[in-house]
Amino acid sequence: MFAEKLRAAQQANNSFLCIGLDPDPQLMAHPHIPSFIQEIVDATADLVCAYKPNMAFFEALGLGGMQIMLESLRSVPKHIPIIADAKRGDIGNTGRFYAKALFDIYKFDAVTVNAYGGRDAVQPFIDYAERGVLVWCRSSNPGGADLQDLALSDGRLLYEEVAEQAREWNVRGNVGLVAGATWPEQMERMRSLCPDMLMLVPGVG
Amino acid sequence: MFAEKLRAAQQANNSFLCIGLDPDPQLMAHPHIPSFIQEIVDATADLVCAYKPNMAFFEALGLGGMQIMLESLRSVPKHIPIIADAKRGDIGNTGRFYAKALFDIYKFDAVTVNAYGGRDAVQPFIDYAERGVLVWCRSSNPGGADLQDLALSDGRLLYEEVAEQAREWNVRGNVGLVAGATWPEQMERMRSLCPDMLMLVPGVG
Repeated sequence: MFAEKLRAAQQANNSFLCIGLDPDPQLMAHPHIPSFIQEIVDATADLVCAYKPNMAFFEALGLGGMQIMLESLRSVPKHIPIIADAKRGDIGNTGRFYAKALFDIYKFDAVTVNAYGGRDAVQPFIDYAERGVLVWCRSSNPGGADLQDLALSDGRLLYEEVAEQAREWNVRGNVGLVAGATWPEQMERMRSLCPDMLMLVPGVG
Repeated sequence: MFAEKLRAAQQANNSFLCIGLDPDPQLMAHPHIPSFIQEIVDATADLVCAYKPNMAFFEALGLGGMQIMLESLRSVPKHIPIIADAKRGDIGNTGRFYAKALFDIYKFDAVTVNAYGGRDAVQPFIDYAERGVLVWCRSSNPGGADLQDLALSDGRLLYEEVAEQAREWNVRGNVGLVAGATWPEQMERMRSLCPDMLMLVPGVG
């Protein structure tokens, strides 16, 4: 399952580094995305514990975007897990189709999800017990506070409630959290609420 | 702009009906999705004010999914707006690429978005002033209450705060709300908080 595959990659490479793959054609040294990403992977495959392609950047390439993504990821060694940064979240029936796309068709080891729709919006992903589900809890952007830091009636903040709900959903050990590295205080709080859960910490840039 | 196009379609067809296009191959009378959807469109194009294809169902078709979506929507008359049900939401730089995919490449008139990431996660969509941005506020599913009905420290509920933030973001008149038809009380509350904003009301089934 995902947690074991991740742990094995962490040990094999002695690394907790996950490299995001967000190809922006305007920032790239050369325009062929699969070669560009393969060069990154070849240079880092013994230094990381995971790769995290961001769906938005491939969708923005147009009709061939998902094909380009598959070609780009071909060079990732089989023992390194790949996390789809997708932030998907929708009511249960729709969620099942997002999970089907990301897990059955594109075979990702894990995905990031958005829990605003509540438990039944996340459950279709969790039902794939062999795959990881990383709940977007406290985001790295400036606007992350707009909703996530709202105080609830009992004094806790919304992202803390999200972390605690995610902990309850983690019946089979495949649920983790996404915690922006830009907010170390909130990150520590999430770690103390969910000491046994995986945390993906983006935002180092 | 979107609101005007929608209003014109509402008047032309004397309709407030938006038909969702969520093709599930297992439920379809015949398996060719573009013809299946074209039959729906041909039978309803003078009865609706909008169509709403759901991205998840097309993504779950695999690499050719977006091509199938474009073929399926070809029969929609030009004056009827098409809303991408995508529930996208991510930090600003990623949001820009989701907006590019949905607005620049697929030319949707409007999209549904998830505001959990805060204002700067939604802004890249709002910046397309000619297009509509429908903020997922109170969802139609049973788990909608898990987060959206949480009481804040001042007694308001989270979905009410989301509605009020969306109202503040609506500087150029292109922001609306998504409000599940299954919760009429919350729907009325959103209408009273945002009397001038568009409301997309799914969940009639």
